[in-house]
Amino acid sequence: MDHFQAVATVRSPRTEPIDDDWGSVISTIQLDSAQFTAEALVGLDTFSHLEVVFLFHLVPEDKIERVARHPRNRTDWPKVGIFAQRVKSRPNRIGVSICRLVKVEGTIITVEGLDAIDGTPVLDIKPWMKEFGPRGEVDQPMWATDLMAAYY
Amino acid sequence: MDHFQAVATVRSPRTEPIDDDWGSVISTIQLDSAQFTAEALVGLDTFSHLEVVFLFHLVPEDKIERVARHPRNRTDWPKVGIFAQRVKSRPNRIGVSICRLVKVEGTIITVEGLDAIDGTPVLDIKPWMKEFGPRGEVDQPMWATDLMAAYY
Repeated sequence: MDHFQAVATVRSPRTEPIDDDWGSVISTIQLDSAQFTAEALVGLDTFSHLEVVFLFHLVPEDKIERVARHPRNRTDWPKVGIFAQRVKSRPNRIGVSICRLVKVEGTIITVEGLDAIDGTPVLDIKPWMKEFGPRGEVDQPMWATDLMAAYY
Repeated sequence: MDHFQAVATVRSPRTEPIDDDWGSVISTIQLDSAQFTAEALVGLDTFSHLEVVFLFHLVPEDKIERVARHPRNRTDWPKVGIFAQRVKSRPNRIGVSICRLVKVEGTIITVEGLDAIDGTPVLDIKPWMKEFGPRGEVDQPMWATDLMAAYY
């Protein structure tokens, strides 16, 4: 289908995929200066949070899963479809995360709690608006709540 | 960079991009049956909401904006950078939305409030987990709140 080009790169103290404790990680998102100037970020600092779309770039093509599996290979959790979990070994390898904006300086954005490792290619940066949150009450299965307990 | 392949297609009563009133729109997300079976969706119905990553496929390459503009061309709102707004004419043309899951039948997911028009290529489907919501209080500028007032 389509060809995508990274708009920015993540610089993070985390250089390897780790499951948990992302909440206090401070990292930067550095715009590709060949494509963008600071003008692309004007007004971003009037938002408290961002939504970042990125690529799980370390997942090799042959590790992408298309059927069902146990999240984190935990057989005490149910086997669920690849689209019923957020594992990185997924078709198109796209991650989406909301993080707190710390500051914007030129073409560099500093954020807190972005669950992407050093070198991650960023496909998009969007401001978070509260109206984009889920409308109506949120339900999720117990395994998801268990999995997320130590994530942030 | 990378080549992406649609995993599904949106079928919606809305065939043209319209700014507002998406909240009650009922649409379906139809998995590409050449790539996936119903197994890819097992357990999805234990979640109340989904996050859908899709392509704003009707935006031509030469309409993509890379600097700053007035959201919805409203000159009474500030001129902000392309990454400080969620307009569709953005680099990589990626949309991300949270919608309510109505039901899953085979490889077809019925949803409510998905702001994507008929024929939209879907790049990823993720279950929404409440822990992925913004940590800490959300702030946003007045123009964003005004813009979103009639969106859903």
